[in-house]
Amino acid sequence: MPARLARWLPCLTWAHGYNRHTAASDTLAAVIVTLMLIPQSLAYAMLAGLPPVTGLYASILPLIAYTLFGTSRALAVGPVAVVSLMTAAALTPLFAPGSAEYLGAAMLLAMLSGAILLGMALLRLGFLANFLSHPVISGFISASGLLIALGQLKHVLGLNISGDTALLLVPALVKALPTVHWPTAAIGLSSLAFLFAVRSHLAPLLRALGMPHALAGNLARLGPVLALIGAVAAVQWGQLVDAGVHVVGAIPQGLPSLALPAWDASLALTLLPAAILISLVGFVESVSVAQTLAARHRQRIDPNQELVALGSANVAAALGGGFPVTGGFARSVVNYDAGARTPLAGALTALGITITVLFFTPLFHNLPHAVLAATIIVAVLSLVDLKALVRTWRYSRQDGLAMAGTIGGVLLLGVEAGILIGVGLSLLLFLWRTSQPHMAVVGQMPGSEHFRNIARHNVIQSPTVLSVRVDESLYFPNARYLEDQIVALVEAHPATRHLVLMCSGVNLIDASALTSLEAIAARLATADIQLHLSEVKGPVMDQLQRTDFLKQLNGEVFLCQYDALRSLDPDSTARALQAGRAST
Amino acid sequence: MPARLARWLPCLTWAHGYNRHTAASDTLAAVIVTLMLIPQSLAYAMLAGLPPVTGLYASILPLIAYTLFGTSRALAVGPVAVVSLMTAAALTPLFAPGSAEYLGAAMLLAMLSGAILLGMALLRLGFLANFLSHPVISGFISASGLLIALGQLKHVLGLNISGDTALLLVPALVKALPTVHWPTAAIGLSSLAFLFAVRSHLAPLLRALGMPHALAGNLARLGPVLALIGAVAAVQWGQLVDAGVHVVGAIPQGLPSLALPAWDASLALTLLPAAILISLVGFVESVSVAQTLAARHRQRIDPNQELVALGSANVAAALGGGFPVTGGFARSVVNYDAGARTPLAGALTALGITITVLFFTPLFHNLPHAVLAATIIVAVLSLVDLKALVRTWRYSRQDGLAMAGTIGGVLLLGVEAGILIGVGLSLLLFLWRTSQPHMAVVGQMPGSEHFRNIARHNVIQSPTVLSVRVDESLYFPNARYLEDQIVALVEAHPATRHLVLMCSGVNLIDASALTSLEAIAARLATADIQLHLSEVKGPVMDQLQRTDFLKQLNGEVFLCQYDALRSLDPDSTARALQAGRAST
Repeated sequence: MPARLARWLPCLTWAHGYNRHTAASDTLAAVIVTLMLIPQSLAYAMLAGLPPVTGLYASILPLIAYTLFGTSRALAVGPVAVVSLMTAAALTPLFAPGSAEYLGAAMLLAMLSGAILLGMALLRLGFLANFLSHPVISGFISASGLLIALGQLKHVLGLNISGDTALLLVPALVKALPTVHWPTAAIGLSSLAFLFAVRSHLAPLLRALGMPHALAGNLARLGPVLALIGAVAAVQWGQLVDAGVHVVGAIPQGLPSLALPAWDASLALTLLPAAILISLVGFVESVSVAQTLAARHRQRIDPNQELVALGSANVAAALGGGFPVTGGFARSVVNYDAGARTPLAGALTALGITITVLFFTPLFHNLPHAVLAATIIVAVLSLVDLKALVRTWRYSRQDGLAMAGTIGGVLLLGVEAGILIGVGLSLLLFLWRTSQPHMAVVGQMPGSEHFRNIARHNVIQSPTVLSVRVDESLYFPNARYLEDQIVALVEAHPATRHLVLMCSGVNLIDASALTSLEAIAARLATADIQLHLSEVKGPVMDQLQRTDFLKQLNGEVFLCQYDALRSLDPDSTARALQAGRAST
Repeated sequence: MPARLARWLPCLTWAHGYNRHTAASDTLAAVIVTLMLIPQSLAYAMLAGLPPVTGLYASILPLIAYTLFGTSRALAVGPVAVVSLMTAAALTPLFAPGSAEYLGAAMLLAMLSGAILLGMALLRLGFLANFLSHPVISGFISASGLLIALGQLKHVLGLNISGDTALLLVPALVKALPTVHWPTAAIGLSSLAFLFAVRSHLAPLLRALGMPHALAGNLARLGPVLALIGAVAAVQWGQLVDAGVHVVGAIPQGLPSLALPAWDASLALTLLPAAILISLVGFVESVSVAQTLAARHRQRIDPNQELVALGSANVAAALGGGFPVTGGFARSVVNYDAGARTPLAGALTALGITITVLFFTPLFHNLPHAVLAATIIVAVLSLVDLKALVRTWRYSRQDGLAMAGTIGGVLLLGVEAGILIGVGLSLLLFLWRTSQPHMAVVGQMPGSEHFRNIARHNVIQSPTVLSVRVDESLYFPNARYLEDQIVALVEAHPATRHLVLMCSGVNLIDASALTSLEAIAARLATADIQLHLSEVKGPVMDQLQRTDFLKQLNGEVFLCQYDALRSLDPDSTARALQAGRAST
């Protein structure tokens, strides 16, 4: 029973044995992550179209939920860029950003997303996330990064434009360029320059000055905090609010009251597709980060328990006035590097954010939107990896096409359309590919019992036995193709008396393919050719034995291709073994 | 050039060498098919919600188009039950059946369907039809047959009800039973009894009386003509029109004028999904019939040219005032059995129908709807094969589920929803299945170089080399699963120094799986285990060679599993060969 309980509450495993030493490590990590999380939370709330303070709210309860239920020791959950963008994409067509209805819908979206993740955990549907292939996820994140950066440029330059696709944003930006608000642009562009400089030069500089490697890296990650402080100071001293620079303004002090989001069945139904996509994307992103970090310390994470943890985190976000959250890449790495030993570091981070909400929000009054937008741009551009498209295309045209489709879809049609196009394309291209499987006529390798493609290897072929290896499961998309190809092969080899289908690559024969095999057998029988099978795998054989096919077959089923040839044309196998001896 | 022309106009191949003998055979077949086609055409037009005469129109030009372009020598095209039902399902929600708008939309539907089929021919998209798996098509035809029969019962009993799903039809029929119109029911039920009796008893009876086998079979197929004659006579003598029996009524004499259907872009867009489904279903049904008949005479049909022929036939149907058509099973078999030698039999049938339209339509004035409905019911019930569901389920749960889903979908939600559910289910179930592939630890068969599953065969296993055969292509739905399984297998075999992935069943490694393989290799390397591959197929190897994976691999790629073991643990292979010698 304790083992079972521990599976559902992984915190029990690490709570046992928690000591002063681990506590010190966790506390240090929490302080650093809190400092990093404050600007990120404010910025991603703005990206999601919500009041900045909701970003802080979304960084309290979800972290505690993940501490209780999560299996990764370093994952830091909270608002992340891509999920915030997806939240904005789902809600902007329905309500005015920043309005009470918009905020309520964001909480409902978090609740739905949490319920979906918990439902997936219960029904063990975590495998659904696998349908987001690596190229689709990679393309999606790159394109979202570009789209987010484009969208934030208006805050950096103080432009008043709107649009949620690259197709709308680029011309709007160009057209609005003459109306740049210079005080805003001064803050925004200098923040951008500062953040890029810190990102690429600060850590090497500190290391050159003799600072330890990890500490230098972590300090460099706090660039956004420095930018925030500098910007607030500049606004205050320069009285830039009067000059028209948009700032965060008054933030309600104190914690949000716990409340369920208002239930609206028709709104929930409208938000459901977005909630499903947010859940899947958030889950895949978070699990990838957690697995990467776990692998470094030979720990393992349990994907199903991660569904429980992320589901709880989103329900907690909904209860605490937040919006959809998931595990973030950059801050998890910082958490890990700063020495987080247990998920308690997350709870301590939540404590840090709570203290911030209780006491320090007045400090953010004069925080300009431009600097928040600049931190977003620098963060998301580091996620953009367009070279991956070239690499993927070079490896496989199909994967490259799915990735290009995702990128194009996100940029031109938006995030939801983009990811659906990506998933649809990867499935269709796979099906198209398997509908015309590779087939090879095989012969025996000299001096071996192994059979390979006659077009690639110097092999010995029997004149009367045609051996064909089908490199695909036989199922409905290729059942008819198989018939056509076999007929054509037999016509091209008129001396054939036996056809052996080598089934080492056949992992499934479905009902449609069975019908085709029966048709092939009947057709070969009229031409006086025997049909044999070889290397049929256990599970496939089990299925065939439940039908009449094997009884009606005029040939045999051989355990391996060598046995088939030794039985049907012993001369040929003897020659092949002889040829091997002669050549060695 | 003539060969190329002949590929597009297959009639050139048979026109050469046409003589008096073939002409006599074709003419006899045409007469029999014409007599069979008249009641079918009238009935299927009624089923499609159209004036009965449109069925005759749809049996003239399409037959001539198929004669010119078709590759099957026996296929008889024209209105068929399933396609007529799909036509009604597409049009009934839009217009009142029988109205001028409804007729115009039916012509537009035929035109769209023709254009789609021709487009598929041009783009060589015939493979799309393969996505309709055998169980889905079989379930679709059975369920459509049941649904059609249910829908026609109202005409047989003279009830005034509506509904297009079993869920609506069954309760409506039960509720309306007390309002049966007895004169109609008398004709309908006696026609049904007569047709069923003719179907099952006439041919054996005629054969017992000494009639030749084929002739007896063909005469028995003319039962519907006799039923028609009998019913018309009964209506005339009994003055049943005055008693309220619904009859076909006045039919315009003469041929329809040739005209393009009125173009309405928004209507065309609405009809497009239905047109796509009708095209695919019609194509699959027709090609199946053509292939079955061609196989009997060792002829071959060209699926792409069939797309051209069916596309032209549908365009011709649209021009001549008809509705979507395709190759029909029963009448093609009759055509074949009656001795049709060339597609000219089809053109002669068209001539027969033309003569009927020109001179004999007044004879149909008193034809009761009840007898047409009875001929439909008898025809479609012969297509219902619910035992196939049991057979399919026994062979494969997944295929059985797809078939059951199709049948349930058609009966409860209608034809379009049913076929979409079937296709969707078969794809999803395939993906679900491949997302958790079968994996086997393999060992060497004693006395052989062949490796099989240790759980099924008595094989020799090396203590230090773990050989794992993955029975699936490695691609995104199973990439993560592979990682988990390999880690679990290695943990279960702690003495492992080498892991050999036997890739005989791996027909593809996509970019997601490549990432997983890299992760597996890195993880095994930290545990001091070498990762090797064996039996990698040529096309997969080509792809891997375009990446860094093989360079970073700490193990080798072996041509075959035996080579791997001989190199990594020679003792084990020697023991296995020795064990084989000892046992024989």
